[in-house]
Amino acid sequence: MVEIAPSASPEPRIFTAALVVIGDEILSGRTQDKNIAQISSWLGVQGIRLKEVRVVADEFPAIIEAVNALRVKHDYLFTTGGIGPTHDDITVDAIAQALGVPVVVHPEARQILADYYASRGSELTEMRLRMARVPEGADLIPNRYSGAPGICWGNIFIMAGVPMITAGMLDALTGTLEGGLPVLSETVGCWVGESEVAQLLADTEKAHEGVSIGSYPFFRDGQTGANFVIRSTDAEQLATCVTVLSSALEALGREPVLGGI
Amino acid sequence: MVEIAPSASPEPRIFTAALVVIGDEILSGRTQDKNIAQISSWLGVQGIRLKEVRVVADEFPAIIEAVNALRVKHDYLFTTGGIGPTHDDITVDAIAQALGVPVVVHPEARQILADYYASRGSELTEMRLRMARVPEGADLIPNRYSGAPGICWGNIFIMAGVPMITAGMLDALTGTLEGGLPVLSETVGCWVGESEVAQLLADTEKAHEGVSIGSYPFFRDGQTGANFVIRSTDAEQLATCVTVLSSALEALGREPVLGGI
Repeated sequence: MVEIAPSASPEPRIFTAALVVIGDEILSGRTQDKNIAQISSWLGVQGIRLKEVRVVADEFPAIIEAVNALRVKHDYLFTTGGIGPTHDDITVDAIAQALGVPVVVHPEARQILADYYASRGSELTEMRLRMARVPEGADLIPNRYSGAPGICWGNIFIMAGVPMITAGMLDALTGTLEGGLPVLSETVGCWVGESEVAQLLADTEKAHEGVSIGSYPFFRDGQTGANFVIRSTDAEQLATCVTVLSSALEALGREPVLGGI
Repeated sequence: MVEIAPSASPEPRIFTAALVVIGDEILSGRTQDKNIAQISSWLGVQGIRLKEVRVVADEFPAIIEAVNALRVKHDYLFTTGGIGPTHDDITVDAIAQALGVPVVVHPEARQILADYYASRGSELTEMRLRMARVPEGADLIPNRYSGAPGICWGNIFIMAGVPMITAGMLDALTGTLEGGLPVLSETVGCWVGESEVAQLLADTEKAHEGVSIGSYPFFRDGQTGANFVIRSTDAEQLATCVTVLSSALEALGREPVLGGI
């Protein structure tokens, strides 16, 4: 009889995602991106960690390279931008090319758009019909704001670039993606130069396995301060680390501010 | 005698840059990135086009991969974040590893830091000295706010993550990088659904060589509008295209708003 050694409890599976932001307007500095923060926060709640973002131009080779590099590296790949009706909206064509599948008109998307424009006394023109085109084999992501749906193909989620519409699409996806333990975090703020407590931070992180501490300095009202963000998937370890760090800061005569400054 | 055919005027050289944003705080959604827009706008003025951005975690393999992929693909590579005094600041070590050079203490940086802390009645501790470490062969980028300099190594510019400090470093670099013709742009706004004028936009772009038109829809006060951003390195072509597009919108009974809405 083979004796089976008691195994340590298995490491919890970590789910990761990448995001490709498609848009000359972000790269030119004209538009301040809002989707990175929005999507990463949403992913965090789903128990999925955003590990990499690429912002690329509205160009076929750039989109294809980013999509093919990232879709195999992560559990999920999100894209934003370039799915509208105009000539600079090339995301669907580029992703289809990356996947090696043809672009087809999705019948349900065509119906959604026909209904949407009919309800506004308008017509589904050829350019508007562009928004019903998907890589063959795709499903739709509902868009409660402006008709034209997002697209899901395998582990790829193709979303709008306008942040409000992206938000609606994320909402439609909430709870549908498998994730792992969410990363919990607490912030301890302090009016202290981070360099003054750098050694303390390093030692504290080292003493608490599975906990990471990020240090984010700021300058405000002529004073130097920092927020220390403590992260862990384990609530108990997180709380212990927060207590230890706060006490250590107090011992230095520096008041810790729970929740951050 | 060899006759030399008259050649067309050579295409102007286009200078490109990439940016690697290093920081868990951006990927977690905790911090809204400000450096992408700031750096891309600054690059535009220098006649350099930002072509790609990657946001990566505070992890050696992620930083090394991004730096090595992008430094050979573009004229310039910028990085932000991870050059402070704390344990999570690993940018210098990761980039040195990517370049295959050792990390050394830069004597001038050490002096700057020693002076900076002495002037504040404090000392250059071991952790603070971390901010004088550079990949061997590097030059410094002045930091007028908080002492610790940025780093230049070949075509790589290693900058702070705190946007105000990044701004000071960009300021120090202004006019020092070779660029090409800056991309000029004009915005024409219109209270129109972009799908309604999608064909017009495509035709107008096609009729004006060297001009690109981006369409950026928005929803405001319950109404649909869009800004059309016209870009070119040629001021005359740009002006012509703006006039043609504006007239065409007027002919449709849609008032064009120069400068955007």
